[in-house]
Amino acid sequence: MENNSPIGVFDSGIGGLSVLKQFLRFIPYEKYIYLGDTARVPYGNKSAETVIEYSLQSARFLIDKGAKMIVIACNTASSVALEAVKNEFDVPVIGMIIPAAQAALRTTSNHNIGIIGTRATVASGAYDKALMLYSELSSLNIYSKACPLFVPIVEEGWLEHDASKLIAEEYLQELKEKEIDTLILGCTHYPLLKKLIADIVPGVNLIDSGEHAAVSAIRILGEAGLLAKERDEFNFTPDVDFYVTDVPSTFFDIARRFLDFDVNTPKRISL
Amino acid sequence: MENNSPIGVFDSGIGGLSVLKQFLRFIPYEKYIYLGDTARVPYGNKSAETVIEYSLQSARFLIDKGAKMIVIACNTASSVALEAVKNEFDVPVIGMIIPAAQAALRTTSNHNIGIIGTRATVASGAYDKALMLYSELSSLNIYSKACPLFVPIVEEGWLEHDASKLIAEEYLQELKEKEIDTLILGCTHYPLLKKLIADIVPGVNLIDSGEHAAVSAIRILGEAGLLAKERDEFNFTPDVDFYVTDVPSTFFDIARRFLDFDVNTPKRISL
Repeated sequence: MENNSPIGVFDSGIGGLSVLKQFLRFIPYEKYIYLGDTARVPYGNKSAETVIEYSLQSARFLIDKGAKMIVIACNTASSVALEAVKNEFDVPVIGMIIPAAQAALRTTSNHNIGIIGTRATVASGAYDKALMLYSELSSLNIYSKACPLFVPIVEEGWLEHDASKLIAEEYLQELKEKEIDTLILGCTHYPLLKKLIADIVPGVNLIDSGEHAAVSAIRILGEAGLLAKERDEFNFTPDVDFYVTDVPSTFFDIARRFLDFDVNTPKRISL
Repeated sequence: MENNSPIGVFDSGIGGLSVLKQFLRFIPYEKYIYLGDTARVPYGNKSAETVIEYSLQSARFLIDKGAKMIVIACNTASSVALEAVKNEFDVPVIGMIIPAAQAALRTTSNHNIGIIGTRATVASGAYDKALMLYSELSSLNIYSKACPLFVPIVEEGWLEHDASKLIAEEYLQELKEKEIDTLILGCTHYPLLKKLIADIVPGVNLIDSGEHAAVSAIRILGEAGLLAKERDEFNFTPDVDFYVTDVPSTFFDIARRFLDFDVNTPKRISL
């Protein structure tokens, strides 16, 4: 592993690009390899055993490409497979759940924390468990709500459509009544709806897992002496190699929406 | 200098608390000393010589308190006194201008960058110079606009008042016509107006200097092995000692608005 080895990011699909975006925002000079297991997305309804197997395959692919760090940019894989990936490989591994839970606990004043995610993530209770594990607040109140329409809305690109507003109002009404002051965006697609959500729950702190994962990465790589050098070089093109297990027809549109720049054609691979 | 030495942050007044807030968001386990030179605020209209002298006094105070890093959380002092403070002391020094300029250059796609700040900051051309220095874009278009009413609006707490909206629309109209895609919030008070500004220039990337300064700090301290240890400790109270050269009657209200928590009574000192 060297300073200019790449950071490997994997996800069940393309949602993890919102995580990559946060990494590019804060440590842009790194090389990245992004692997989306688009042929087998979503992971949410698969058994833990299968998700662990798929995650180990993805991590192995990134390690073979020389990754100095693995980022599990998928909530389901993070909740189920983090330990397995950590145990299997020698590089630092960062998931989505713990950085977001810790950030939420630091942020809340009134101890009412909301979690939104896919049905599978909410049912898994992964964030609830992490919040309880790291919390010393016996008075912590956790309210979670599955928002199944948010992923298709984001993929359709209707980020501020009136229909999206109505849907978000419906989903968030319950959490609003509970007077949450902090809301974990527990799905990689949801950061694209930040503005929509903020308009409905003004003043609530929105916790973006990818942002806090990126900050953890700087700390871990910095302390290990493994950060890439900063460069005074602009007209800046991020250095990302994209790999997918299938190229959906909507890939480029959606990737552009997540990243704000045009991506190269991804390489299709089999795991 | 040790891992648990404090990070020293100074500003001409209380605006730098928005910078401190970003540091607390990303590296909450550090100890902080905040010094606001509230008796001599604002620095904007003072000569470079005087601002350098004041900045060296503030930095000296923080160094004597054991600071392992100095953050100049004031745009005027950053543009005028960064080199002088760097030359005088052995610890890493971070200002506001360079991290924001670099972030803006990485962020823009259409090469139209806006800058808003106080009259003094805009007239100094500090951001323009930094953008040109770090840019290789001969095609870079920089548009700056002084927004003198934004500081008093923030201090009055009218963050979403209809009057504030009208004022912001007036100030931002010109930049909007220039089709900027990136806007540097070149004054420490302005991050509190993020929502107001975002509503007027939707889709424009707002660059918060404090956020990028905090990320620089993690990198620098991490590589020097000087980050405080992370702790699994919540019910979290930030560890900040506040010093001011004068205690204005509105100090507590304004500090609460900037930080989202109640601050202890600051210690009044003379520089």
